[in-house]
Amino acid sequence: MVKLEEKVFRDPVYGYVHVFDKLIWDLIQTKEVQRLRRIKQLGGTYMVFHTAEHSRFSHSLGVYEMARKIIRALMYCGTVLEEEERLLVLSAALLHDLGHGPFSHSFESVFNVRHELFTERIIMEDTEVNQVLESYQKGFATKVRDVINKTYENPLVINIISSQLDADRLDYLLRDAYFTGAPYGEIDVERILRTMRVVNNKIVYKVSGMHAIEDYLMSRYQMYWQVYLHSTGRSFDLVIQNMLRRVRELVLSGYQFRHPIGALADLFLEKDLSVETYLKFDDATISHYASLFVEEEDEILSDFADRFIHRRLLKEMHYVPNDEVNKNLIKIGEYMSILGINPTYYLITDHSVKTPYDYYGHKTNCLPDCIELLMRDGSIKEISEVSTIIKGIIAVKPKQEYKIYFPLDLIKASGNVEIKNKILELLPENIQ
Amino acid sequence: MVKLEEKVFRDPVYGYVHVFDKLIWDLIQTKEVQRLRRIKQLGGTYMVFHTAEHSRFSHSLGVYEMARKIIRALMYCGTVLEEEERLLVLSAALLHDLGHGPFSHSFESVFNVRHELFTERIIMEDTEVNQVLESYQKGFATKVRDVINKTYENPLVINIISSQLDADRLDYLLRDAYFTGAPYGEIDVERILRTMRVVNNKIVYKVSGMHAIEDYLMSRYQMYWQVYLHSTGRSFDLVIQNMLRRVRELVLSGYQFRHPIGALADLFLEKDLSVETYLKFDDATISHYASLFVEEEDEILSDFADRFIHRRLLKEMHYVPNDEVNKNLIKIGEYMSILGINPTYYLITDHSVKTPYDYYGHKTNCLPDCIELLMRDGSIKEISEVSTIIKGIIAVKPKQEYKIYFPLDLIKASGNVEIKNKILELLPENIQ
Amino acid sequence: MVKLEEKVFRDPVYGYVHVFDKLIWDLIQTKEVQRLRRIKQLGGTYMVFHTAEHSRFSHSLGVYEMARKIIRALMYCGTVLEEEERLLVLSAALLHDLGHGPFSHSFESVFNVRHELFTERIIMEDTEVNQVLESYQKGFATKVRDVINKTYENPLVINIISSQLDADRLDYLLRDAYFTGAPYGEIDVERILRTMRVVNNKIVYKVSGMHAIEDYLMSRYQMYWQVYLHSTGRSFDLVIQNMLRRVRELVLSGYQFRHPIGALADLFLEKDLSVETYLKFDDATISHYASLFVEEEDEILSDFADRFIHRRLLKEMHYVPNDEVNKNLIKIGEYMSILGINPTYYLITDHSVKTPYDYYGHKTNCLPDCIELLMRDGSIKEISEVSTIIKGIIAVKPKQEYKIYFPLDLIKASGNVEIKNKILELLPENIQ
Amino acid sequence: MVKLEEKVFRDPVYGYVHVFDKLIWDLIQTKEVQRLRRIKQLGGTYMVFHTAEHSRFSHSLGVYEMARKIIRALMYCGTVLEEEERLLVLSAALLHDLGHGPFSHSFESVFNVRHELFTERIIMEDTEVNQVLESYQKGFATKVRDVINKTYENPLVINIISSQLDADRLDYLLRDAYFTGAPYGEIDVERILRTMRVVNNKIVYKVSGMHAIEDYLMSRYQMYWQVYLHSTGRSFDLVIQNMLRRVRELVLSGYQFRHPIGALADLFLEKDLSVETYLKFDDATISHYASLFVEEEDEILSDFADRFIHRRLLKEMHYVPNDEVNKNLIKIGEYMSILGINPTYYLITDHSVKTPYDYYGHKTNCLPDCIELLMRDGSIKEISEVSTIIKGIIAVKPKQEYKIYFPLDLIKASGNVEIKNKILELLPENIQ
Repeated sequence: MVKLEEKVFRDPVYGYVHVFDKLIWDLIQTKEVQRLRRIKQLGGTYMVFHTAEHSRFSHSLGVYEMARKIIRALMYCGTVLEEEERLLVLSAALLHDLGHGPFSHSFESVFNVRHELFTERIIMEDTEVNQVLESYQKGFATKVRDVINKTYENPLVINIISSQLDADRLDYLLRDAYFTGAPYGEIDVERILRTMRVVNNKIVYKVSGMHAIEDYLMSRYQMYWQVYLHSTGRSFDLVIQNMLRRVRELVLSGYQFRHPIGALADLFLEKDLSVETYLKFDDATISHYASLFVEEEDEILSDFADRFIHRRLLKEMHYVPNDEVNKNLIKIGEYMSILGINPTYYLITDHSVKTPYDYYGHKTNCLPDCIELLMRDGSIKEISEVSTIIKGIIAVKPKQEYKIYFPLDLIKASGNVEIKNKILELLPENIQ
Repeated sequence: MVKLEEKVFRDPVYGYVHVFDKLIWDLIQTKEVQRLRRIKQLGGTYMVFHTAEHSRFSHSLGVYEMARKIIRALMYCGTVLEEEERLLVLSAALLHDLGHGPFSHSFESVFNVRHELFTERIIMEDTEVNQVLESYQKGFATKVRDVINKTYENPLVINIISSQLDADRLDYLLRDAYFTGAPYGEIDVERILRTMRVVNNKIVYKVSGMHAIEDYLMSRYQMYWQVYLHSTGRSFDLVIQNMLRRVRELVLSGYQFRHPIGALADLFLEKDLSVETYLKFDDATISHYASLFVEEEDEILSDFADRFIHRRLLKEMHYVPNDEVNKNLIKIGEYMSILGINPTYYLITDHSVKTPYDYYGHKTNCLPDCIELLMRDGSIKEISEVSTIIKGIIAVKPKQEYKIYFPLDLIKASGNVEIKNKILELLPENIQ
Repeated sequence: MVKLEEKVFRDPVYGYVHVFDKLIWDLIQTKEVQRLRRIKQLGGTYMVFHTAEHSRFSHSLGVYEMARKIIRALMYCGTVLEEEERLLVLSAALLHDLGHGPFSHSFESVFNVRHELFTERIIMEDTEVNQVLESYQKGFATKVRDVINKTYENPLVINIISSQLDADRLDYLLRDAYFTGAPYGEIDVERILRTMRVVNNKIVYKVSGMHAIEDYLMSRYQMYWQVYLHSTGRSFDLVIQNMLRRVRELVLSGYQFRHPIGALADLFLEKDLSVETYLKFDDATISHYASLFVEEEDEILSDFADRFIHRRLLKEMHYVPNDEVNKNLIKIGEYMSILGINPTYYLITDHSVKTPYDYYGHKTNCLPDCIELLMRDGSIKEISEVSTIIKGIIAVKPKQEYKIYFPLDLIKASGNVEIKNKILELLPENIQ
Repeated sequence: MVKLEEKVFRDPVYGYVHVFDKLIWDLIQTKEVQRLRRIKQLGGTYMVFHTAEHSRFSHSLGVYEMARKIIRALMYCGTVLEEEERLLVLSAALLHDLGHGPFSHSFESVFNVRHELFTERIIMEDTEVNQVLESYQKGFATKVRDVINKTYENPLVINIISSQLDADRLDYLLRDAYFTGAPYGEIDVERILRTMRVVNNKIVYKVSGMHAIEDYLMSRYQMYWQVYLHSTGRSFDLVIQNMLRRVRELVLSGYQFRHPIGALADLFLEKDLSVETYLKFDDATISHYASLFVEEEDEILSDFADRFIHRRLLKEMHYVPNDEVNKNLIKIGEYMSILGINPTYYLITDHSVKTPYDYYGHKTNCLPDCIELLMRDGSIKEISEVSTIIKGIIAVKPKQEYKIYFPLDLIKASGNVEIKNKILELLPENIQ
């Protein structure tokens, strides 16, 4: 394999990202990887944490670097990956998020695409990434895809980049904490790496590393509640989704846009969305069109575009679902209709659930990506059998939240005082 | 009250410790507070974490600073302490550890003293600290003592420096993590402070701060297992204890020491140990005498002194207590006697238990220092009612460890191969 | 003045940004301030430091927060700003960068606008910012403008946000270091704040803070060379500039664009560029049009657009200017023309100079923004009179660099081997 | 060479210190290395920076770890040390401070010993360290000594642990900054390591690392003025020196001590101070005797002992030396004698000078340990030829300070008002 003189990227999370292989260097230079610079890692979260402006490009470099560290750690404890599999892991780490669109989850829910599918297609179809992989070795693209798809033959290779404790999760927790300023992302990575061992082609952890893993699971839990599920960020995502849903509806109904919407229409009209079209979309595209949409005649579109551009978020409220509340929500929707506020777009219910550790199986039936400990006596145990913390957490029902989002500004601005007041009375929380 | 031009101490945990009151400044200059510079905060832990060499003096300044921050945070949300009570909190924070002896817990267990009692006596008897307090206000020493003793009338004042989430714990978690290098001490102090409110003269926390508190409780749990209960540190503490126990036994039996042991004898012989004698002891004293004891004829004393000075620790092993193991331990003791190794000193069993949150009461019966949340509807709830994490942790049995400590080096060095091998076979873990 | 319940923004540089005033809160919500979210603080620097993706919005909040800290520090040492001037400083701090366009310096050099002018216009003309300021107090916008323009009557107010050691510089050094990962931005802000005093309506520093200021000046110097003047970042800026210059040339010459360029044409054609048009431009706009330009027929435009989108930078080389080298550069340009590579766009010389401290005046003639120390005897001295470090640095010629940028890829791709080789020979550095 | 399974020490400065070689592990366990745990790295500095309580043991581990990193960095760029020389560097790094006594510089100045000599003797004479070294390889102790003495044949080996930019300095700057909390110790170690190259058996630095080195030199300069030369720390050192000087005078004059002073007397009386006696002394010994000396009849001894134990420092004042001031100082001494205050002990003048970079030679005559850069054209230049910052600093006179230390408390307490006032008037600074 062609080795480079080491190249580095300065990175605040790791100090440096180190590149030693020409294959990796060439992958980084491709259009498709460079495009990730134009897609924010955390979608609309920067509307809550104003410094969460980092891109999927920096995360992808980070997952690569973390995978490199894991490979090195395994080597120290005696498990040396063959050259080809080493490069397979590193390539898959770098490329695993290639298919993300702008404001990912919003985009996917509207266009009914899955970024996983586009990651696969970008690797396999006619792209620079595909060329670089194939020119390293005929058939290498397929192998990289299989690793990302978790169908590759050697489970260890898959393990490094996708499991309950993988390079992807480690990087995003560290990185998202760094860039949001949330104080929950400190993870004792060095200890986790040091206690890794390979048993039956799977990474397990010496029991002396258990506390570091407990701490990692707690960080993950905290980041979910504090950052990823933050209701203001959700509110902004809903604004984007509704803007895009409205565009689709308008495109499909033949609405005449004041400003041409170019390739955006293709997204809705193209039968089988091509990789080429898909790759044209990034945060800048959405942002640019949103600024044009502000001037559209359609009120719903122009309202959501304006909310997007000028950060006029929907109001959120917590509720506890029960028959009465549910009936009230339906009534609120009816009243909103009377005020001319379309509840399909403007009254959204949202439900989130999170446990710090997603494994609920039984010993005889351990999910392949669960976290296992290597005990002093050589046996292997799933972590919740050993850790009282994890056991405790699994024992209770996971934390849930129910919320509604709606345009309090529009409601308050309505001249129909009677209906307005009825809505305000029915809301699950008081408005002073 | 006399105000100073602000004085500061550079402190790596807070940036600076700020002093604005002459009373506090004068207390810091007293002999008794300065003595805390000569007592390590974490006793023998520096034998495991080699940088854990920080003193109780720096912790005491830290608790003072944290108490100052809490008072300021309460002020921002509308609860202003009167001048006298403000100084009472700050003084108590600074002085709360005044009675600690060298290698505190070891010292206390041998001499059967409690540092709490000596803290009280140093504040009340004829000391510089007492003079400074009384010259600020007649009777002030008594009030400071009452705060530390938790008998003071205003529970809020007590709350700030002793509860499940107080200035003492916050400082030691932050500080001990900083100086050991353990990566578990990051706590979102600013958020905790921001969500404090006072209800019924007790500090409660807005529910929006719950995650920060969960994180704090986890940090505390991790620090216990990773640092405070670390078995090597325990092993070193046992060496100190046994050295001191042996000195006592020798003093009481009239043993003639090769080198005079000065005031050390008074510790054992004085009927009512005076504050003056007590204050003469610090880490340097113990360390100095240990270096003399190395040259004593008594083998047990000289062995433990040598272990102390040259870090020859006892070997530790985990075991799971059951009838067979317990019988084995008794036999090991008998065999050790045959080898001339006194099991009273050399075979020690140890049991530790820790939950991250010490509260097990019921709603009707909440311990005064439990952590309570202020809910959005104005009600107050104990945190484990709300946090699934905490509830989960309380639901399972706390984590426990059983260990023995013994001198593997002495056993291995024995010429009696038969007995030696019998011991090795009976040990709860294998020795290669 | 209307006070808010304190609001905060989580910020990794300061922990939190705190807002107590309704005026400030309302300013932050305006369209014009929110627009700064869509403009990167460091323009093209993220092409070198991949995490330098932070926006002018976060910097603007940061300058506000730092100004708030300075006001508080001055208050502690006895200089209390009146309420109106306090809000004047805070507003000016928040708004000082309002007029920045996308990829600021590139944009300005092509469009011949100055962001300072647009900052002023946005504050004074018909904008949300102007409304908020005027609704606080008639005439307040004018005052804010005067502070930013440095024509306001009270020099202290100006001093806080623009001088050699002001809130703007402190924030950008800290922030840019944090987001690039460059290890040079640690500044002892707390000590600098603590040693501030006001003498004759100007901020001076107690001599005990001198070392912290030396350190700040060195950080600034290092950040300039390591980050702000980094040649790869410069190379990317030149790509943007040339792309925009080419658009202008094409627009003015009546070129027919394949895709409509909308408001972008207005930028070149509008006689007096309106604030409304100007504010439409942000990084997303430029990025969006660049992706369209890739498909234009004009080769220069499509080449530079492609370089922008896919990070194909110009090659840079250092040179030492002298007659021979200068002649060579002219010849290189001529040869490039022969190869069909327009040297007006493709052969760029660049010269940078930096001293860590920009003051060269004399005592009798101290520039108003120089850094002055308050000596123990009460006298005031310019820092280079006292600091041997600063004196030394001023004594030598400032550091300079001369570079050329050119498209090595295009030259190498040329079929005219003879001319190509001539160019390669004339280059100031060897190409292997 | 015998390899261990990797062992680690948690270290807050590096995360972990890694040990791979049995030789190093065994050296760390020796009595002589363990003794360094009982000697503070910064002597009396903890009286100013209260958290500067770290030991020479942690520094020694740190220098070892940094040397290990340097060796690895050199290996990456193609210079591989032979196994023996690798261990030589690591051993020398670990052992280089072995001969330090308690409160090092004070101790040395009074006992007229040099720690370098004792480092050498401990390595060469009958000690555990010597045994470990010799059992690795006959004659290895001599080689280690030669490296520390800078007489070893391969200059590269010496270079790593003693030069203007060596493992020793890098560790102490990082470590002392961490433990004092001084914000000046951040150094871009990774970049320095990455730009190291070996030319003619000497480490040089690629010019691209120059700014990191400038930054290192500035950190060093700042740490000197802010920490190492801090006048309060100096004041405390003078207290220790005077206490020890007084003991010597008393011992030599046959004074009868109230409490036996054991081995301390040997220090003064032993003709050729033995390594065994020397090694008995650590911070605890000095501290223990000081607490006994408080009760001595000799007033000078008991006063200085009390100052040591209870932090009653001498007052310091800056002065600018000239004929008049010098005459005043002599008079002050005379007046102090009249008050019964012995000026030999109680009136101390102090002069400190520091430049950030100690090299003043000429190109033809470069000191062996100067810092040299590897230029782009392959030539080597001393850094001050290239760096305008360093050149500037060398161009001016180094920073100097003159101070006196004296017992203001004793003078103020004197009943002889006339003489007291005369002294106060003659002091170089005003006392209110």
